[in-house]
Amino acid sequence: MKFKEETIKSDCIYKGKITEYWVDEVLLPNGKKSTRELVKHAGAVAIMPFTIDGKMIFVKQFRKAIEKTILEIPAGIIDKTDINPIETGKRELEEETGYQAKVFELETSFYSSPGFSNELLYIYRAEELTKIECPLAQDEDEFIELTTLSFEEAWTAYEEKLIIDAKTVFALFYWKMKRQLEQMNR
Amino acid sequence: MKFKEETIKSDCIYKGKITEYWVDEVLLPNGKKSTRELVKHAGAVAIMPFTIDGKMIFVKQFRKAIEKTILEIPAGIIDKTDINPIETGKRELEEETGYQAKVFELETSFYSSPGFSNELLYIYRAEELTKIECPLAQDEDEFIELTTLSFEEAWTAYEEKLIIDAKTVFALFYWKMKRQLEQMNR
Repeated sequence: MKFKEETIKSDCIYKGKITEYWVDEVLLPNGKKSTRELVKHAGAVAIMPFTIDGKMIFVKQFRKAIEKTILEIPAGIIDKTDINPIETGKRELEEETGYQAKVFELETSFYSSPGFSNELLYIYRAEELTKIECPLAQDEDEFIELTTLSFEEAWTAYEEKLIIDAKTVFALFYWKMKRQLEQMNR
Repeated sequence: MKFKEETIKSDCIYKGKITEYWVDEVLLPNGKKSTRELVKHAGAVAIMPFTIDGKMIFVKQFRKAIEKTILEIPAGIIDKTDINPIETGKRELEEETGYQAKVFELETSFYSSPGFSNELLYIYRAEELTKIECPLAQDEDEFIELTTLSFEEAWTAYEEKLIIDAKTVFALFYWKMKRQLEQMNR
């Protein structure tokens, strides 16, 4: 079966700071034409920062797109000058939390919504955190508050829909599985 | 700490078939102005269809936004006339796979990327599937192919980056955890 859609025409509708909106005209496998709405995004890196006592650090922030203040794992958009996602991740962890991590391992990566966007998100596990005396400054127009939660507290936040975005829900289920494994190996 | 951003001005840049692109001017908590790029989306429903022999049904489809053919769990956009997400889920399962499910349980829901979009995704677990003799027709311009995979096969597809979107990666980790639990309870 042939799946690929050939681009006939590609229109840039808007170039924003973090997204570009394009509308493509495509040729479908059956020979018909259709349009595709595409949101181009540089990609992002998120970090699951585990503290020494087995808690996780979250950031509380307002998200205009959903008009809600929610709890998320630290994350940031990949910068053009970043050599690789781990560089983005380490910088964002430091900027948003003031911590550096000795262990920084890629756990997964996924497209957040490939039906319309090419945003690719990398998720790292950070462990052995150390507080930095003079951390990188937060972005000037970023208003965030840090919260460190135990698994039970985070799960409650999830049930209360304070944790409700893809990367943080993934982090929570990952954490649940990690605890299960630790229990099995005990 | 005050988080909320007040909308000063809201411009609709484009109304597409599945997304609308808006640019809002906002007043930040520090009194400064900024802009927010917003992709409005009706939301979607995805289904993890478990077969009687413990496999899962996936759909293979081309995604223009990433220019790749990937494997995803069945999903579809919420229709204006859908009373609730479960209705969307049951319809999409039938349209895309030709199956109905006796068990249809909400496992989670999350915003795919609240930094710029309000797309909310519901994920259901479907079990006790029965093949329908005369299923709902697929959308005319949808080109998909079904594949039923064991956990090991799906994990291989994930390692080969054929499974690489948020909902399907979530489904895979959920499945991994479910298997772990079954093992623990044995």
